[in-house]
Amino acid sequence: MLVEGKDMRSIWWDEGIHFIDQRKLPRKLEIFTATTLEDVCFAITDMVVRGAPAIGATAAYGMVLSTNIDQGARKLKQTRPTAHDLFYAVDYMITHSKQGDDLLTAAENYVTEIIACCKKIGEQGNTLLKKNNRILTHCNAGALATVDWGTALAPIRLGKNKDLYVWVDETRPRLQGYLTSWELTQENIQHVVIVDNAAGYYMAREEIDLVIVGADRIAQNGDVANKIGTYEKAVLAHENNIPFYVAAPHSTIDYHTPNGTKISIEERSIDEVTTIQGQQIYDTNARNPAFDITPASYITGIITEKGIFRPQELKNHERNRNP
Amino acid sequence: MLVEGKDMRSIWWDEGIHFIDQRKLPRKLEIFTATTLEDVCFAITDMVVRGAPAIGATAAYGMVLSTNIDQGARKLKQTRPTAHDLFYAVDYMITHSKQGDDLLTAAENYVTEIIACCKKIGEQGNTLLKKNNRILTHCNAGALATVDWGTALAPIRLGKNKDLYVWVDETRPRLQGYLTSWELTQENIQHVVIVDNAAGYYMAREEIDLVIVGADRIAQNGDVANKIGTYEKAVLAHENNIPFYVAAPHSTIDYHTPNGTKISIEERSIDEVTTIQGQQIYDTNARNPAFDITPASYITGIITEKGIFRPQELKNHERNRNP
Repeated sequence: MLVEGKDMRSIWWDEGIHFIDQRKLPRKLEIFTATTLEDVCFAITDMVVRGAPAIGATAAYGMVLSTNIDQGARKLKQTRPTAHDLFYAVDYMITHSKQGDDLLTAAENYVTEIIACCKKIGEQGNTLLKKNNRILTHCNAGALATVDWGTALAPIRLGKNKDLYVWVDETRPRLQGYLTSWELTQENIQHVVIVDNAAGYYMAREEIDLVIVGADRIAQNGDVANKIGTYEKAVLAHENNIPFYVAAPHSTIDYHTPNGTKISIEERSIDEVTTIQGQQIYDTNARNPAFDITPASYITGIITEKGIFRPQELKNHERNRNP
Repeated sequence: MLVEGKDMRSIWWDEGIHFIDQRKLPRKLEIFTATTLEDVCFAITDMVVRGAPAIGATAAYGMVLSTNIDQGARKLKQTRPTAHDLFYAVDYMITHSKQGDDLLTAAENYVTEIIACCKKIGEQGNTLLKKNNRILTHCNAGALATVDWGTALAPIRLGKNKDLYVWVDETRPRLQGYLTSWELTQENIQHVVIVDNAAGYYMAREEIDLVIVGADRIAQNGDVANKIGTYEKAVLAHENNIPFYVAAPHSTIDYHTPNGTKISIEERSIDEVTTIQGQQIYDTNARNPAFDITPASYITGIITEKGIFRPQELKNHERNRNP
């Protein structure tokens, strides 16, 4: 991805893990460095790093920093419950550890493969985009969330010569829409931020041609867990006959989970809701589910590195990688 | 309404107009006083006062403060375009002025009638509520928005002995959900604030029994203009077979507007989106429509002071008041 005109990744290894600190963006570009397992767990939990594929990459590198492989696996798996890549990456590293492989090489291979996957997702998704398309996206499924390219943003990056226009949901409570706005600004792609309440308004006015979002976990039947509010946008897209695509690498698919009702949904601190920009709005009761489930029936297609599939087709696929 | 245990109105006349300043709540209870037409226009535009019936009351009192009745009418009508009560109240005052009536008495009668209407809306709406019902509301259609009782909140106030549970959308960009939370806290009614993205999640989990919202303008065919995001919640309620009610006095109905596509939608400053709690999140492009249109087909019923009607039935009704 471009950052101030230079090519960069959101996560890289250099005697420890270095992250673009996503808590500080879009206002400040700062690098966070993790050199212990505890640092890595903090980075995931506190959302220095977020986005399922980026959490997977972090977990892979995190296993390199673990002095005890079993303890490292256990602690990393406890950080966040919903993103499947976290569990996938840890299991991948355990397998390589058991084979006696060099862990840093295994982690670097994992990350290289994520990046290649995302680029392929971009190429696949780009075939859906026509000149002047107006695309809605929710949350940030960009390079920040995936090391490079992004999932939902990869087709947009690769299609930037098509004069696209991107509607960016701000995505309360954590406002990751501004991370997307920051990425699109870096890439010089035309876009506009709206409150989550306004997406339906612009759909009804026929100002949105298609929706592309990422995914944190995809069940075997094609139900998708993604950032809270994804379900709302999917229902609204369906009601307005707007194609709704989910972009994700195959590692997001959890073949052990038959459907969305079985996916554990993380409920985070209510401070994320009642405190904004460091100021408490009001001391009141709140609820803060971080994800929701979009049933497969609302999803037009799932854009993967292997092609674009109807959600119902997923169960016929083999995993592309076995940990 | 109860404020710190005492009965109070959100707007009253005492040698000028006094408002509970809605820009300061829920953090601070402050009174704003308007003694000139300019003060009144500022109070409406800057949202010291908001909510269609409260804006109507303000406009009625505002006409009392106008030194020139035509100029006063023109300036008040330019403050905000969507709420029908504003135009209704100004025309009501012009009629009384032409009849040579005392304007303060006319304005006080207008306000007394709003309050009586809202209480009746509460009585009508309360017939829909069962013990332990879990009700979603959007924005603030409470006493703050209507002088007293509220529209959407009136049935909830009157039904408080039913152990209700209220889901409160925070309602970005201006977070009026916290005004609702403040009112419900004052009344000791159990509730929880959620981000707008989470309403669909709780509907899909069958944790919401019905939805009640207010309205800024209702077209003749029953289409409803209300706070941005209302349309999203209505579509989601429909998809989840949850009854969706709009509570509003008859003065909200604009018989000169055949359907929702003819309602002018105010687009407000993008600072309301990109700046939160006084801090700019990011200097980027944004859009900020303040209202949306919910087609009549998504609305189970409209709760008025005269009864609960299907939106399609409205066109058979006479206005209850002629200005």
